[in-house]
Amino acid sequence: MAMPKAPQAFPRTEYLRRLTAVKGEMERSEIDVLMVTSPANITYLSGYTSKSAYVPQGLIVSLKQEEPTFFTRRMDAPAAMHQMFIDNNRVIGYPEDLIANPDRDGFDTIIDFMHDNGLAGGRVGIEIKSISAQTTEKFKVRMANAMIIDFVNGVHQIRGIKSDLEIALMREAAANADAGMTRAKEVIRPGVKEADAAAEIIAALIRGVDEKPSTDVSGFFLCASPRSATAHIRWSEDFFRQGSQINLEFGGVRHGYISALMRTFSIGKPSDRLRRVHDAEVAGLEAALNAVKPGAICGDVAAAFNAAMKKRGLEKESRCGYAIGIDWTEPTASLKEGDRTVLKPNMTFHLMLGNWIDEDFGYVISETFRVTEVGAETFSKLPRIIFEI
Amino acid sequence: MAMPKAPQAFPRTEYLRRLTAVKGEMERSEIDVLMVTSPANITYLSGYTSKSAYVPQGLIVSLKQEEPTFFTRRMDAPAAMHQMFIDNNRVIGYPEDLIANPDRDGFDTIIDFMHDNGLAGGRVGIEIKSISAQTTEKFKVRMANAMIIDFVNGVHQIRGIKSDLEIALMREAAANADAGMTRAKEVIRPGVKEADAAAEIIAALIRGVDEKPSTDVSGFFLCASPRSATAHIRWSEDFFRQGSQINLEFGGVRHGYISALMRTFSIGKPSDRLRRVHDAEVAGLEAALNAVKPGAICGDVAAAFNAAMKKRGLEKESRCGYAIGIDWTEPTASLKEGDRTVLKPNMTFHLMLGNWIDEDFGYVISETFRVTEVGAETFSKLPRIIFEI
Repeated sequence: MAMPKAPQAFPRTEYLRRLTAVKGEMERSEIDVLMVTSPANITYLSGYTSKSAYVPQGLIVSLKQEEPTFFTRRMDAPAAMHQMFIDNNRVIGYPEDLIANPDRDGFDTIIDFMHDNGLAGGRVGIEIKSISAQTTEKFKVRMANAMIIDFVNGVHQIRGIKSDLEIALMREAAANADAGMTRAKEVIRPGVKEADAAAEIIAALIRGVDEKPSTDVSGFFLCASPRSATAHIRWSEDFFRQGSQINLEFGGVRHGYISALMRTFSIGKPSDRLRRVHDAEVAGLEAALNAVKPGAICGDVAAAFNAAMKKRGLEKESRCGYAIGIDWTEPTASLKEGDRTVLKPNMTFHLMLGNWIDEDFGYVISETFRVTEVGAETFSKLPRIIFEI
Repeated sequence: MAMPKAPQAFPRTEYLRRLTAVKGEMERSEIDVLMVTSPANITYLSGYTSKSAYVPQGLIVSLKQEEPTFFTRRMDAPAAMHQMFIDNNRVIGYPEDLIANPDRDGFDTIIDFMHDNGLAGGRVGIEIKSISAQTTEKFKVRMANAMIIDFVNGVHQIRGIKSDLEIALMREAAANADAGMTRAKEVIRPGVKEADAAAEIIAALIRGVDEKPSTDVSGFFLCASPRSATAHIRWSEDFFRQGSQINLEFGGVRHGYISALMRTFSIGKPSDRLRRVHDAEVAGLEAALNAVKPGAICGDVAAAFNAAMKKRGLEKESRCGYAIGIDWTEPTASLKEGDRTVLKPNMTFHLMLGNWIDEDFGYVISETFRVTEVGAETFSKLPRIIFEI
């Protein structure tokens, strides 16, 4: 019996639409064949979410072929056959003796394939940022007749505008994030260990709601007093106390797609400082969302937030957010002044208003939203409040 | 009030010992200053486990300074001050406007620092595998008077032999992995969703035992029928059934250190094939552990496993394991035939005997062990059996 296909997150037509867009961009860049190595881009073009990117792998997109071909470690080929929409015979597992081999690795198999299929003499696109300098050099040396070209953010740019099918998954992911935050309200109590609360919140995130569990755990951060100024600590071995402030950031995940969410908790009455910052941030958040519409630019959204904050005597040094989709951040558009990316319907952003003001104090709130035909749709259903315990 | 130091996972003397070893290696390579960018190496040399490696960061080790200097994004500086053993004034947060900035990034700040401190004219070590080709090029261009040298696995090699303090953390991590596997025995039942079981197991992993919770979630894989041939799928949206086989791989985590563990579950009586493979693998596992002793080489351990398997008419294509420590795999030594790394006391390995035999069938079992003065000490206390539900 061959490996059966998993229930697919998207219909075949959706993947072909994405591939057509990528091939159009390849044609504009006069690229004949493209090696996609960014894990999120591989997910986008195939449905693959298995975690094999710690060893060489590449999805080869050729203008001459409807479906791409995936090269991965032999032990990971069955998962690729299971999850990817492509024919199983387009999944090629390279031999296990290329792992931890100082002389050859999986990229040599890809280069051999290009030589054998007449692809090594033309213009070959790679994603330089997602491979090491040594791998780039290997391509240049072993394919001396080819022109090796960085496709830069070519696939990322296409990913920037979601289909309605992708938006549906992000709404499901947001419902799971809400379930995690709701669980946090139940388990954050004085005397509880941060780790025990994290265990309960992560379990709720995974279970999810509406029979749509999260399909991964992604980017969980619980930063509590005296660490409210920190942004990316998982959790500590400390306990919550009366008066503790807890900053939470995490996402629900559906087949790679993430909806991120941040909220601040206070055990007991929030301090005046926390209340003042919260009020300003919520005003800024609403101003930012009101600035979202097709045709506006990313910088407009940040400017609206910053103006609302400034009016209240506050500021935020870091950007106000970024494009989000598969595996969290997309490296294309930032909600920051100076970013002139034009907003279009179904672009999705994490309006990330975490504000780590000084070594004593930070505060978080966020919304994941999509650009609609007229404005913004936020995915979370939770109120924009400090959750008081 | 400045950011307080977290309770440290290791005493200062332990970090200084590690730094002395790195500096010795730098001297042998005639490197004056080293930029460490591998996140696990940064953890090793400083105690930092916060998740900021998705943007530029670097730990600068200079022969002229006892403590290293850490450059990270401004918002992550408080976490570094909190977690790292170094003086807070050695944590330098670069401006937030370098994030998503096409012209300059955090590495430019590091290069500026090297110029300002007379470090840009000598022999500068970098870790090429953990930075992009563009970043390497930036160093070569902006430090034209320096000789940029790849430190390759210099820090990784030093990490290979653990101190007793590190071994103690790995034992704690193993106890947490055992707790996760024990929880799996309770929650894997016919009709239960894979995701719900994963939620319970991960929660148990995080809670841990003996008031030593896991400090992160790492590498969790639940591959169940009909996906027993897959290795790295988190979990699926499927349900367990009577007759299902479930392959589990995960690790407990303590301050970055991981003890990995794999076991196979069967709901109902194991098939003859599963039983036969299990018996051969356990015989191979025991033969491999018996081959471990100081002075033996990694290849000996693999050969012992392979011989025991062959005797039973079976084989395993992938390597039998790898060095393990911070953030799972260490890229230094493999338990595979041909690897001539000499075993020394307190080297630690994941004897990873997952065997994905064909598209229909895979099986997993593993032990994380250390080399002792006379043999091997495995960290898990669990029996080497198929867990029948």
